[in-house]
Amino acid sequence: MRSMTLRDVAARAGVHPATASRALNAQTRALVNDETAARVSRAAAELGYRPNPIARSLKTSRSGSIGTVIPDLNNPLFPPIVRGIEDVLSQAGYSALIVNTDNDADREAAQVASLRTRQVEGLIFATARLRHPLLEQLVREGVAMVLVNRKVESAAIPNVGCDDASGMAAAMRHLVELGHRRIAHLAGPRSTSTGVIRLRAYRQAIADTGATADDALIELCDYWTEEEGAAAVRRLLDAGVRFTAILAGNDLLALGAYDALGERGLVCPDDVSVVGFNDIRFMDKLRPPLTSVRIPHYEIGAEAARVLLERLANATIPAKSVLLPPSLVVRQSTRPPRRRRSRSPRTSPALPGLAGRA
Amino acid sequence: MRSMTLRDVAARAGVHPATASRALNAQTRALVNDETAARVSRAAAELGYRPNPIARSLKTSRSGSIGTVIPDLNNPLFPPIVRGIEDVLSQAGYSALIVNTDNDADREAAQVASLRTRQVEGLIFATARLRHPLLEQLVREGVAMVLVNRKVESAAIPNVGCDDASGMAAAMRHLVELGHRRIAHLAGPRSTSTGVIRLRAYRQAIADTGATADDALIELCDYWTEEEGAAAVRRLLDAGVRFTAILAGNDLLALGAYDALGERGLVCPDDVSVVGFNDIRFMDKLRPPLTSVRIPHYEIGAEAARVLLERLANATIPAKSVLLPPSLVVRQSTRPPRRRRSRSPRTSPALPGLAGRA
Repeated sequence: MRSMTLRDVAARAGVHPATASRALNAQTRALVNDETAARVSRAAAELGYRPNPIARSLKTSRSGSIGTVIPDLNNPLFPPIVRGIEDVLSQAGYSALIVNTDNDADREAAQVASLRTRQVEGLIFATARLRHPLLEQLVREGVAMVLVNRKVESAAIPNVGCDDASGMAAAMRHLVELGHRRIAHLAGPRSTSTGVIRLRAYRQAIADTGATADDALIELCDYWTEEEGAAAVRRLLDAGVRFTAILAGNDLLALGAYDALGERGLVCPDDVSVVGFNDIRFMDKLRPPLTSVRIPHYEIGAEAARVLLERLANATIPAKSVLLPPSLVVRQSTRPPRRRRSRSPRTSPALPGLAGRA
Repeated sequence: MRSMTLRDVAARAGVHPATASRALNAQTRALVNDETAARVSRAAAELGYRPNPIARSLKTSRSGSIGTVIPDLNNPLFPPIVRGIEDVLSQAGYSALIVNTDNDADREAAQVASLRTRQVEGLIFATARLRHPLLEQLVREGVAMVLVNRKVESAAIPNVGCDDASGMAAAMRHLVELGHRRIAHLAGPRSTSTGVIRLRAYRQAIADTGATADDALIELCDYWTEEEGAAAVRRLLDAGVRFTAILAGNDLLALGAYDALGERGLVCPDDVSVVGFNDIRFMDKLRPPLTSVRIPHYEIGAEAARVLLERLANATIPAKSVLLPPSLVVRQSTRPPRRRRSRSPRTSPALPGLAGRA
């Protein structure tokens, strides 16, 4: 059986082949009136016609594919973002090619090169670092891009993320209202916009709420991982820093805090309250359930895809920055600090059992 | 600047263009000797040559893409499987196009049609149901396929999964060794091979270990979700079925069991032990940490990709079935049942407080 061509479909629908082509392409369907488009679709279905987007891409230099660059699909942050991206792209007739970089610049460059040989029409990046020569180069080459959850310093690239500063402010207000003053911050990597923005918001919230400003309360983490979070809390404890609460830069750092506190015989929330950021799946099932700042990950992915589609339709629109609102989810990892008012009402609440350490 | 062609690369490397083409294609590189391949790669890098796989795919009818069909990337089972698939495919010069079906047959058919218009060279399915007309049709059409984690009844399709029966046997042995005899099973959907195989293995283990055989202990779940697991445990409790342990068909069903037990004021593991299956991420952080059967998801994905590549190289090899071994991870959700030996040493241990119900 010979395979059906566009010409066959056009003949059956009684239209010109160019009209049939437009009607069958999600990107051009709007150019054809509804009744005609429906007639062409019906003819295509009746004939079992299957368009060949590879042949089409050579003519129109459209592959119908978008590259999505993430650090690691196993980080629970990314599956809902990727689903949001895919759902919007597939409705528009595009598909997503997903690559993992493991936060390795060489691997990232190789993966992006591979995506470009596949002639993706645009790229969605979730791996942006504040200084990111590859992204700057792609901007110079005119590649359509959107950053998700991150920003770069030096280039104007549209980005979609969450209003991290207001999320941090809400978390700090919650802790201060519970009575905490010495609140430690596990800060994410300084190479990432999220790490920097959340640390800046922590400092701002300290000033706004009257919590204790003390740089000893800030521990920098090199990666957004449980291991880094645990190591940071061990450093705080080993240095004898007093704190009654921890605001972690993300949930994985908070999980590491749980581990390190447990190692030292400290109980969350009795001894130390802990707050995470992102509210990834299962945070409500932890021991104890984690208070966290919820980020609308699916919606962020969906919005990133919409912004990229906009840009593909019109390359001249300015590089906008879209922020979606977070919300604080209070669970059982936060409670008022233990106080020892009878002995020393004016001192900051101290971490029990740590006074003599270090 | 004109873009560099394969001819330019061949000239610089001093080889015939056909040789340069073979050297630059991951699928044919082995046909060229190493020294020549290295010289061609160097020449391509120096000239900034970027092959065009879309043009190539028209000549060789190879798109370099593989479709991966999963129910939902947000189910934590799938990210590690997908990473395994991608890592093996990308080493072989292929990329994965991932689609989500949400376990909806119409959506699945549409997604597969979309993948085929993109001329994927093969399909990896993680959505197989025991009866699956679409898969049977694809077999008839000669599409290269591999099933991951699932099987179909009627068609010979290569599949890669885990030895579920031995995983269930290990979990049952563990519970019986702790002293449990009345062990409930939350069985997964009967439409899935995993649901059926795990239920069969539960029955076999009952016979092998001397635990109590009682069909009232088996609750069928229509989906692999927390909601279904919770509903199943509510049904068991409402019916007054006595049990001291629950072996759930997967971790999400076990999480639902946690919820339903909590609603009724029952404590795991004090009142009821719970075992999951899959050991997805964070199961070690739950309240209580979940005893579960660990499945090597990444390796299953990687092996599925290898089996598909084998099949693309040689379509005549028989449809093999590859099973990787599971391992039981014992955590704090399982402990010996409460016994009331002094009063009635020969009766099965009963769930406290339920004797008078229903």
